[in-house]
Amino acid sequence: MYRPQIKVLDCTIRDGGLINDHQFEDKFVHAIFKALSDAGVDIIELGYKASDKILSPDKFGKWKFCKESHIKKILEGIETKAEFSAMLDIGRIKNDEIPKKKDSVIDIMRVACYIKDVDKAIELVKHVADKGYKTTVNIMAVSTALQPDIEEGLAQLAEAPLNAVYVVDSFGSLFSEQVHFLVNLYKKYLHPKGIEVGYHGHNNQQLGFGNTIEAIRKGANYVDATIYGIGRAAGNCPLELLLAFLKNPKFNLEPILEVIEKEFLPLRKKIEWGYILPYMITGILNQHPRAAMALRQTKDKNKVADFYRKLTAEEEDA
Amino acid sequence: MYRPQIKVLDCTIRDGGLINDHQFEDKFVHAIFKALSDAGVDIIELGYKASDKILSPDKFGKWKFCKESHIKKILEGIETKAEFSAMLDIGRIKNDEIPKKKDSVIDIMRVACYIKDVDKAIELVKHVADKGYKTTVNIMAVSTALQPDIEEGLAQLAEAPLNAVYVVDSFGSLFSEQVHFLVNLYKKYLHPKGIEVGYHGHNNQQLGFGNTIEAIRKGANYVDATIYGIGRAAGNCPLELLLAFLKNPKFNLEPILEVIEKEFLPLRKKIEWGYILPYMITGILNQHPRAAMALRQTKDKNKVADFYRKLTAEEEDA
Repeated sequence: MYRPQIKVLDCTIRDGGLINDHQFEDKFVHAIFKALSDAGVDIIELGYKASDKILSPDKFGKWKFCKESHIKKILEGIETKAEFSAMLDIGRIKNDEIPKKKDSVIDIMRVACYIKDVDKAIELVKHVADKGYKTTVNIMAVSTALQPDIEEGLAQLAEAPLNAVYVVDSFGSLFSEQVHFLVNLYKKYLHPKGIEVGYHGHNNQQLGFGNTIEAIRKGANYVDATIYGIGRAAGNCPLELLLAFLKNPKFNLEPILEVIEKEFLPLRKKIEWGYILPYMITGILNQHPRAAMALRQTKDKNKVADFYRKLTAEEEDA
Repeated sequence: MYRPQIKVLDCTIRDGGLINDHQFEDKFVHAIFKALSDAGVDIIELGYKASDKILSPDKFGKWKFCKESHIKKILEGIETKAEFSAMLDIGRIKNDEIPKKKDSVIDIMRVACYIKDVDKAIELVKHVADKGYKTTVNIMAVSTALQPDIEEGLAQLAEAPLNAVYVVDSFGSLFSEQVHFLVNLYKKYLHPKGIEVGYHGHNNQQLGFGNTIEAIRKGANYVDATIYGIGRAAGNCPLELLLAFLKNPKFNLEPILEVIEKEFLPLRKKIEWGYILPYMITGILNQHPRAAMALRQTKDKNKVADFYRKLTAEEEDA
């Protein structure tokens, strides 16, 4: 019933931290990493690895920087078979600030980029691969890229020292046939070089989980999820649904349900994510959620029809 | 880009009414039917057509009975191109309580049944077809039926005077490949007789919309949805997502967004539906949501890990 090659990566703290500048309490983060370990998740994403000279530790919490000392402290008392990953944004870290793999808890460095920045991403990938890390590239906002540009990028990525390249539905706008098209296109370039295809969905149209299933059906073996779907704006593919779907006996759903009950139901009353209509509207219009995120900070947060009229009028002006 | 044959049926009041025994205020119901008409939805389901001698009007609101006088009153001032439907439960209405089509606002009678009750459903279908109505059969809980039973039922239904037969994912447990299997199976028996396939999803695994897309991809032309996904337990495929996906220029999203803003956001604070974990748990276990609905009425409503352990222990005892 299950495909043993599939690797589930949880990015609860990394993507969820985009809601609150990674200002999570240590107790919360420890409980998450413990639950993920107990659940048998393959890869736990700790956060971003950014430079504290480029981004301010006054503004951002620990998991924007992923310092080795902080990682070791938070993992105390947790036994795990999981690998650990961190995400690198281009331009937010200097090469000499990244330790060698032998001096790091991190196993996998994931480089996020837009298709136009593939060359920069490959430089960074080569650097971290040389330092001993496994690597992935996550091509963001691929729903707004033209096929020749995607193909040119994939042809270059196929020559890089990579474990996986992700389809990232940044705006939560893709439908199943588009997921099929993209996963097949990625496979064509990457599989001959032994590089896996990954999928990272967003939930603006309630398709985060459904499209992840479609990516898996077409051969994606790296799939991202977050506990209770936490993540910026509409959030992500919910981990609890994905684990139940995959049916691999190594996964255990109970620790995830426990931590949702204890940590996420209370948290959801303080910070918001999920199927909230302004995010649905940016999703159906294939736009970044920033206009919706701005709206949610105003007294008009629920004026969804006006918001829709405004965005579609802007489309007509384009 | 769009398939003109697809008929969108909204069952907001009918399925949403399962949450509150159809105790909606007239003003609310009028606003819903007005918005659906303005949005260009093909079929508006008014409610159930049950007997007030079998079910008590003291317990249930108007839309459990769909009396002609009530329908006419609520539709005053609404201009519409939509057809109207009502759902019939076997044993909850007597034949002589159903008026002839020429004396009714209702165009389509939808008979709901389990696969074991197909013979009773066909008797009722023949009766209402003789009275001049269009007809459908909605086979509930098909995720728990065996293929030979489904095929025997479909072979009989193929000989009945029907416009469509629905795949109903009552427990919200189906995945895309199962939807493909069922829609293809229904098509094999029904399409040669000119009977369409329909799909009615539930949202326990956040697949109400995604699976509806999959049913459409395989040829289902009747699809059910509700505004903001309202419906018993986890609710249904959200109409606003479906209309945006379908891209038929006859549809207009704005009236639906307006009515969500004015009516559904306030209502959601009074009654609950949607991705609530006990419903997710009954969904992944392919069970009726009744245990989860009972749990939500207790002080342990959020004890999801215990609830999961209880249901899976019952599975082990089976």
